[in-house]
Amino acid sequence: MSVQIRQLATTAPDFDREFQRVLHWAAETDHAIEQRVAEILADVRARGDAAVLDYTRRFDGLEASSLAQLELPRAELQAALDGLPADQREALVHAAERVRRYHERQLEACGRSFSYRDDDGTLLGQKVTPLDRVGIYVPGGKAAYPSSVLMNAVPAKVAGVGEIVMVVPTPRGEKNPLVLAAAAVAGVDRVFTIGGAQAVAALAYGTATIPKVDKITGPGNAYVASAKKHVFGVVGIDMIAGPSEILVLADGTTRPEWVAMDLFSQAEHDELAQSILLCPDAHYIARVKEAIERLLPQMPRRDVIRASLEGRGALILTRSMEEACEISNRIAPEHLEVSSREPGRWEPLLKHAGAIFLGAYTSESLGDYCAGPNHVLPTSGTARFSSPLGVYDFQKRSSLIEVSAAGARQLGRVAATLAYGEGLQAHARAAELRIEDGQEGV
Amino acid sequence: MSVQIRQLATTAPDFDREFQRVLHWAAETDHAIEQRVAEILADVRARGDAAVLDYTRRFDGLEASSLAQLELPRAELQAALDGLPADQREALVHAAERVRRYHERQLEACGRSFSYRDDDGTLLGQKVTPLDRVGIYVPGGKAAYPSSVLMNAVPAKVAGVGEIVMVVPTPRGEKNPLVLAAAAVAGVDRVFTIGGAQAVAALAYGTATIPKVDKITGPGNAYVASAKKHVFGVVGIDMIAGPSEILVLADGTTRPEWVAMDLFSQAEHDELAQSILLCPDAHYIARVKEAIERLLPQMPRRDVIRASLEGRGALILTRSMEEACEISNRIAPEHLEVSSREPGRWEPLLKHAGAIFLGAYTSESLGDYCAGPNHVLPTSGTARFSSPLGVYDFQKRSSLIEVSAAGARQLGRVAATLAYGEGLQAHARAAELRIEDGQEGV
Repeated sequence: MSVQIRQLATTAPDFDREFQRVLHWAAETDHAIEQRVAEILADVRARGDAAVLDYTRRFDGLEASSLAQLELPRAELQAALDGLPADQREALVHAAERVRRYHERQLEACGRSFSYRDDDGTLLGQKVTPLDRVGIYVPGGKAAYPSSVLMNAVPAKVAGVGEIVMVVPTPRGEKNPLVLAAAAVAGVDRVFTIGGAQAVAALAYGTATIPKVDKITGPGNAYVASAKKHVFGVVGIDMIAGPSEILVLADGTTRPEWVAMDLFSQAEHDELAQSILLCPDAHYIARVKEAIERLLPQMPRRDVIRASLEGRGALILTRSMEEACEISNRIAPEHLEVSSREPGRWEPLLKHAGAIFLGAYTSESLGDYCAGPNHVLPTSGTARFSSPLGVYDFQKRSSLIEVSAAGARQLGRVAATLAYGEGLQAHARAAELRIEDGQEGV
Repeated sequence: MSVQIRQLATTAPDFDREFQRVLHWAAETDHAIEQRVAEILADVRARGDAAVLDYTRRFDGLEASSLAQLELPRAELQAALDGLPADQREALVHAAERVRRYHERQLEACGRSFSYRDDDGTLLGQKVTPLDRVGIYVPGGKAAYPSSVLMNAVPAKVAGVGEIVMVVPTPRGEKNPLVLAAAAVAGVDRVFTIGGAQAVAALAYGTATIPKVDKITGPGNAYVASAKKHVFGVVGIDMIAGPSEILVLADGTTRPEWVAMDLFSQAEHDELAQSILLCPDAHYIARVKEAIERLLPQMPRRDVIRASLEGRGALILTRSMEEACEISNRIAPEHLEVSSREPGRWEPLLKHAGAIFLGAYTSESLGDYCAGPNHVLPTSGTARFSSPLGVYDFQKRSSLIEVSAAGARQLGRVAATLAYGEGLQAHARAAELRIEDGQEGV
């Protein structure tokens, strides 16, 4: 049965309206979930360990007499790593090493403290420090992604976070050895087999057993996302992700099967995932469409892929590659493939994207696992104002100011003038006192 | 009448409980405001200009026949600057120049793109780009702070933001010349005299007249804060600030009047502001207390200062400066003064603070106006995980990946192994196709 993927052309008179329809995705707020999550958070805050144990029993079917029993010893993580088939173990170690190397470069580029002095001796600076303790949420069950463990824990480690606490639900005690092995490779400090809103609450407020963290990152279901939004402010959180997206900009020089498979690889995540092709060559679009039809029946996840392509996908014919770049900037996609023989020609035109994959050999899936850059990326157009998860998410900055006696005289007059202008007399007087009196003889 | 400021000592048996009581501050959610704001946002989204005009008429008592009439021409901003008394004009220009210089250093330290190549030619990198368009909210009326215009607009400008759109309500048409002059000095591109939730909505969604922005920063009342929370995700926002706080770590070598005035300068903001002194010298604390009593009656804002000091202030006797530093880290204050002859001895022990003011001459008020670093700082303990407003808030990052044919062979095996392990076959196949087939002869 033919795949009913939307085909658009920028020259069509109703293009803008149709295009808006493709882009439209609204996160629905489920009030029942919000309400339930608020109750769980309040309960964990009040009853601590006992509440977390209750919910873990109820939602995960996991019995324990104390929360301490749900902590996995480091030896068990190492055993999971040692027990993996050799190819999986090596792949995991290799991926972690590449992700680590990339984030070390990022640390050098973005994490520098600095200071400088004025002529009068006044010092100004910025001190960059890692967070003390971070919590990483890792989903259990079918959406258990060991690669997510690496992508969250490695940048935290590179930033110098003091302690990384991971939570991962293990429904009925089922543990995913790849996930535990990834925790060992990434250097996670403590692991608790709890999940859901109760795990987020435990990390945000702390319990007798679970240490309170400063920030919580990592993906989760609607309950986890709602809980993270609730505790934001008490702790830091990473972004709340929408459905995953790929945009392929193609000039018609890449094998059509490759592009088709890249569209599939986004579509297979879930039915709301979005795969879009932008191309100025109608003949090439037809060849990609043909490859989609031919390859889809071979895919184990073909039902999800079809639903995603038919519901949210699009093949869009543009006037030119330049126009395709403009449209890409309007979308601000999470993943942007520039499938062209001249990717360096188009890259400078691309202003908004989570990650840009250049050239035919750079499949988005290489970035998901092992190229090095982070796979946690801004979705739903938020790449216009936000960034991939990175070392900078696990650091914070403090300003440093040390004003000399001479500096206080000069700056004091400026500050006092502006403070009086704002009607804040104590601000003004605090500055003036440093001009009127010396420190001597205190 | 004596000031009833709380006095604590870390040696007291009930210190921890008393200390928690001092720190406790809970932002109350006002459901009536939330509901009203949601309605205004929906209305502006649906009716655009007309809705903004209606609310501006109703809430600000400002009549106009079109929204375009509420845009202030650049010449009017320049005229406001030219019309200021010379001392105010010079203070404003001098402050802006220092803030600009500091944020230029910050840009060098944190805003670098980078790239590197593997041995097989694979390129990895990160491109840092400014936001296209930013909205700055500036409160009108009594809390109109020209210094806030500088602190929000200058870092955006230094980051290279394409267009800065400022909104400032002018109740009954009353314009604050210092605020308009600050906009001229900071290089704000467009100014609209609208405010409240309707202004936030107009910036987030765009209307026929108000351009849609990518991020909204700047302080506001409860309606503005609620509106910013609502539109977060559609656009970026800066932090939602709690009451302002100062913590003074004193070793007893600073004139007590200076410390008293620094505590006042925070307390005068509003009754919920918090001023705390930590000091190991009981005699010195008594001298500061005496200075408080003596100086308070002279202050025009003495009623607000007294209410703040009595409601949320504290003078805390510690065992040592080391213990004072530990307690400071537990508080993670917005403003932290190290009022000591040896500030460099204590600074390395201080892990969490928005801004650190070193030495007796560095009054917090110098930092508020003109030292250079930003005065928009994390409050309510959020300095544990967040940072001052800075150039980095007006930039975003995109990862760059360009895998060579040789790189695709090596990385493809790793990615495919991990993708099969996660049950994502299209991801695996996308990587494998690049190993099986060459690009040649497409």
